[in-house]
Amino acid sequence: MIPPVCTPLTETLDVDVPSLERLIDFLLESGVNGLFVLGSSGETAYLPDRCRRDVLEVAVSRVAGQVPVLAGVIDTATLRVLDHAEAAQKAGADGIVATAPFYTRTHRAEVEQHFRRIAAGVDLPLYAYDLPVSVHRKLDAELLLTLARDGVIHGLKDSSGDDGAFRTLVLATQDLADFSLLTGSELTVDSALRIGGDGAVPGLGNVDPAGYARLYRHAQDGNWDAAGAEQVRLIRLFDIVRVGSAQRMGPSSAALGAFKMALHLRGIIDCPVTAPPQIPLNSGETGEIRRLLEVAGLL
Amino acid sequence: MIPPVCTPLTETLDVDVPSLERLIDFLLESGVNGLFVLGSSGETAYLPDRCRRDVLEVAVSRVAGQVPVLAGVIDTATLRVLDHAEAAQKAGADGIVATAPFYTRTHRAEVEQHFRRIAAGVDLPLYAYDLPVSVHRKLDAELLLTLARDGVIHGLKDSSGDDGAFRTLVLATQDLADFSLLTGSELTVDSALRIGGDGAVPGLGNVDPAGYARLYRHAQDGNWDAAGAEQVRLIRLFDIVRVGSAQRMGPSSAALGAFKMALHLRGIIDCPVTAPPQIPLNSGETGEIRRLLEVAGLL
Amino acid sequence: MIPPVCTPLTETLDVDVPSLERLIDFLLESGVNGLFVLGSSGETAYLPDRCRRDVLEVAVSRVAGQVPVLAGVIDTATLRVLDHAEAAQKAGADGIVATAPFYTRTHRAEVEQHFRRIAAGVDLPLYAYDLPVSVHRKLDAELLLTLARDGVIHGLKDSSGDDGAFRTLVLATQDLADFSLLTGSELTVDSALRIGGDGAVPGLGNVDPAGYARLYRHAQDGNWDAAGAEQVRLIRLFDIVRVGSAQRMGPSSAALGAFKMALHLRGIIDCPVTAPPQIPLNSGETGEIRRLLEVAGLL
Amino acid sequence: MIPPVCTPLTETLDVDVPSLERLIDFLLESGVNGLFVLGSSGETAYLPDRCRRDVLEVAVSRVAGQVPVLAGVIDTATLRVLDHAEAAQKAGADGIVATAPFYTRTHRAEVEQHFRRIAAGVDLPLYAYDLPVSVHRKLDAELLLTLARDGVIHGLKDSSGDDGAFRTLVLATQDLADFSLLTGSELTVDSALRIGGDGAVPGLGNVDPAGYARLYRHAQDGNWDAAGAEQVRLIRLFDIVRVGSAQRMGPSSAALGAFKMALHLRGIIDCPVTAPPQIPLNSGETGEIRRLLEVAGLL
Repeated sequence: MIPPVCTPLTETLDVDVPSLERLIDFLLESGVNGLFVLGSSGETAYLPDRCRRDVLEVAVSRVAGQVPVLAGVIDTATLRVLDHAEAAQKAGADGIVATAPFYTRTHRAEVEQHFRRIAAGVDLPLYAYDLPVSVHRKLDAELLLTLARDGVIHGLKDSSGDDGAFRTLVLATQDLADFSLLTGSELTVDSALRIGGDGAVPGLGNVDPAGYARLYRHAQDGNWDAAGAEQVRLIRLFDIVRVGSAQRMGPSSAALGAFKMALHLRGIIDCPVTAPPQIPLNSGETGEIRRLLEVAGLL
Repeated sequence: MIPPVCTPLTETLDVDVPSLERLIDFLLESGVNGLFVLGSSGETAYLPDRCRRDVLEVAVSRVAGQVPVLAGVIDTATLRVLDHAEAAQKAGADGIVATAPFYTRTHRAEVEQHFRRIAAGVDLPLYAYDLPVSVHRKLDAELLLTLARDGVIHGLKDSSGDDGAFRTLVLATQDLADFSLLTGSELTVDSALRIGGDGAVPGLGNVDPAGYARLYRHAQDGNWDAAGAEQVRLIRLFDIVRVGSAQRMGPSSAALGAFKMALHLRGIIDCPVTAPPQIPLNSGETGEIRRLLEVAGLL
Repeated sequence: MIPPVCTPLTETLDVDVPSLERLIDFLLESGVNGLFVLGSSGETAYLPDRCRRDVLEVAVSRVAGQVPVLAGVIDTATLRVLDHAEAAQKAGADGIVATAPFYTRTHRAEVEQHFRRIAAGVDLPLYAYDLPVSVHRKLDAELLLTLARDGVIHGLKDSSGDDGAFRTLVLATQDLADFSLLTGSELTVDSALRIGGDGAVPGLGNVDPAGYARLYRHAQDGNWDAAGAEQVRLIRLFDIVRVGSAQRMGPSSAALGAFKMALHLRGIIDCPVTAPPQIPLNSGETGEIRRLLEVAGLL
Repeated sequence: MIPPVCTPLTETLDVDVPSLERLIDFLLESGVNGLFVLGSSGETAYLPDRCRRDVLEVAVSRVAGQVPVLAGVIDTATLRVLDHAEAAQKAGADGIVATAPFYTRTHRAEVEQHFRRIAAGVDLPLYAYDLPVSVHRKLDAELLLTLARDGVIHGLKDSSGDDGAFRTLVLATQDLADFSLLTGSELTVDSALRIGGDGAVPGLGNVDPAGYARLYRHAQDGNWDAAGAEQVRLIRLFDIVRVGSAQRMGPSSAALGAFKMALHLRGIIDCPVTAPPQIPLNSGETGEIRRLLEVAGLL
């Protein structure tokens, strides 16, 4: 269970270091197995490089080797990703997570080159990040398998929501010792684990890491009914991402805003602000998130 | 006529400064009215920040005030764009060009906030850049008009290929003294000028700036038949972007590769290399580009 | 100038034959060069086959050979299109207009087969209809040229809004004697004609056929300033399609609803109803359309 | 377990009635719980109305009440769907299955009206069919819940591949007695059933109905390991849909071609032909499908 860590910000849009440290402590104490900083939930694409650096330094230093720290190296194309990858290596991250190129208009053969060059450029395990809603392309199984078999990628964070493709990959990579398949879904973690997935990277894991840690332990124990019950509770909690009005804001504002507001209401982070141009939740929406946290037993 | 300047690179993927200076001189001597550096044709999304800085410095210094220099500030969201905008201002650019956020999943109201914050953050005219094939959203006329009337944006580079929408904007902005409508099309520049467009930003203008400058002068003179004949010649030349095989490479590789190869064959830049993960043209494709340049009278 | 004829309906959702006859007379008297029935503006995809048959019969009989009647044969795949094509031939249409397959998930080679089989199946000229907003694919120039050179298609109705691609096709088909390039745009007809397009199929031509006929005559006479002025007037009139609130209805309801309401207000058709599930304009929206018609001198 | 029945065709593209009867018998004997005719796997969008009628008549007559027969009523908009729905009712179908409108450009409120009008128009239970790859829109949970609570729809065939959304719907419809959630996935049936889904409509169920029937019985018995093992076997078998080369054909040709070829090789249907413009599998591809059937123990 590797939550994609939110990036607490101050009102002046700097990284809120004490809040980030509290969040990391909170996640570690809840029993997570690793941290993924600078992912989509970390607002990476919204943050300037100086914030990215701050997050990396704080995370590596605060975690202090207790669990692996994976670092997102999200950017439009290879050379820019390589710069982030070098920064991650220098900061002491344990692995990097890269998407296919975006904005740029690339061929599948170029996506393959992209991952190969990134892997060759740093001395860290590389994880592919499949996020079609942002990247506007799906990483296909055949390409992922080629990269996995050649040792280019050591795992996949699959946020495509396509559980059939995920399962096909599970079967196809059974013979690969050192390959991790992580679902990015909040909603189907028990199913993903049951069919042989290695773990999950759920954004909602910021808000209720203990819940996902319990789910994971139940799954490890083969106690699928308990895992399922925990999953159902978390699905209900996930309603917080639908509180922000789609008339007023985009899906990032609603989801990341909800995660941060929940962390704020739970007393973990000082300020629920999200990076511009995201639109904040209003007081009615905040009240509804409070209510959902109470229903979930988290307040 | 404001070509989006290509970024010549060395084999080691640094900015090739002498080649960039020669390219700028070549464009200026051909009679262009401005330069747009760090646009899509400049491979901006492929280049690390250090290359972006180099391009800006070289361009501002080499142009030395002869024509305005517009700088692309393309990035995923507001704070990152603002960093580029500040760099552009510091470097002495005359204007900046920004897309809507991408990768991030934003609401129309957030796109509006994005442009407002960028304009407020720097003391340079801001141009909106509409490029749906990369940004995966079209800037709608109503939003652009609101931003134009409020003085947030001073113009639009319209690379949407939607000439009906472009024309509707021309009519709707007739009463705005200080607003420039520039088409990003290579193929319909005469039509765009005839219906009241202010100019063009054609990538092919790197290869044949004199041709586009002639087209523009003919249009200024109301000599539409001559403008049309020049446009037809340039449409035929534009076939160079279809030389690179779509089986082997993406549209960026084919188009930017063709522009750079043509500049190389014309003796303007030393090396036709494009930034990774773009795939180079092979020798057969290079030969075909040579042939098309000869047909166009450019070799 | 070949307007895509609206299909007037009764309140009980049958074809309103007297209104359709009046509309056809109105169009013919305005000097159009042909009629395209059962296109998107004819609500073809909303209408049951019996309505399609009625429209064809009424149109062929009322036109009585004064101008050619083209018939849309829009459906999901080849065999269904062939049934419509046979019905069109039996009814006496002068040509048929087909899109690529949709809903079905086809390869480019299958799109080619689709057009070849349709052409082989009936003894009528076949026109390709490029409408990416509905078909979710763009017909590429290379495919169209192959089909044109092989005599499979005799023309194209290009509603892709991509004027650069349209122009490239104009140049590429100059040597084809019997090939017509028709723009489906309401907004760039003068430009399309000036660059060598053969005609236009503007939905707004239902509402102001005389305007488009004047535009066309001006273009024939080489009087481009007059053509442009007429075009500008028509662009302003086209605002009627933006009256229906996007909060309440889809783009079909707004556009087809506006065309029909305008025809109703002008006294041509009895009833402005559109086929379900389209949502009708409300009284405020109707008033605004009336106002825009008055501004355009059409009431 | 309700397979979406393939439509065997003769070389002359009529419905092959004896083959369809054999296929129905084969499915019934394998223990399926219902049949869904005229779905996507039935090539409905490729078939003329006369073929649709033949399929309905043969299916209702051959099944003779042993299991429910659901009929697809797939078409572009409401009135056309209603015609199919009336035909289904007349033919004696037990339920109808409709998508949102497609090709036509509709608002969410219009999609809602569409389903309401269809339900009001016939005296048969209506199932919503969510197939974004064909319809180019996802039916959102809120709309589906509204329609379910109002008794407009009695179930959903979810072929969106979005198992998180499916699960959210399972939870949200737990209090609705008469609502069936069916997954259209071939690959995650055991997971769908375990989390509370009511059944599955797998296209591959044509080829190995006994396998899916076993999977379903294991799930009913709570024997999830056996269900999982069966599912894994079926995932491997599903590789047949990837045999047809994506260089030569579209995904329909590959998938439906593989299902029909497998049924032909298994001796159930006489002829593997698919409707035009689909492209047939070649002999190498046929051999590979034979091999995969042998591996699965089906030959």
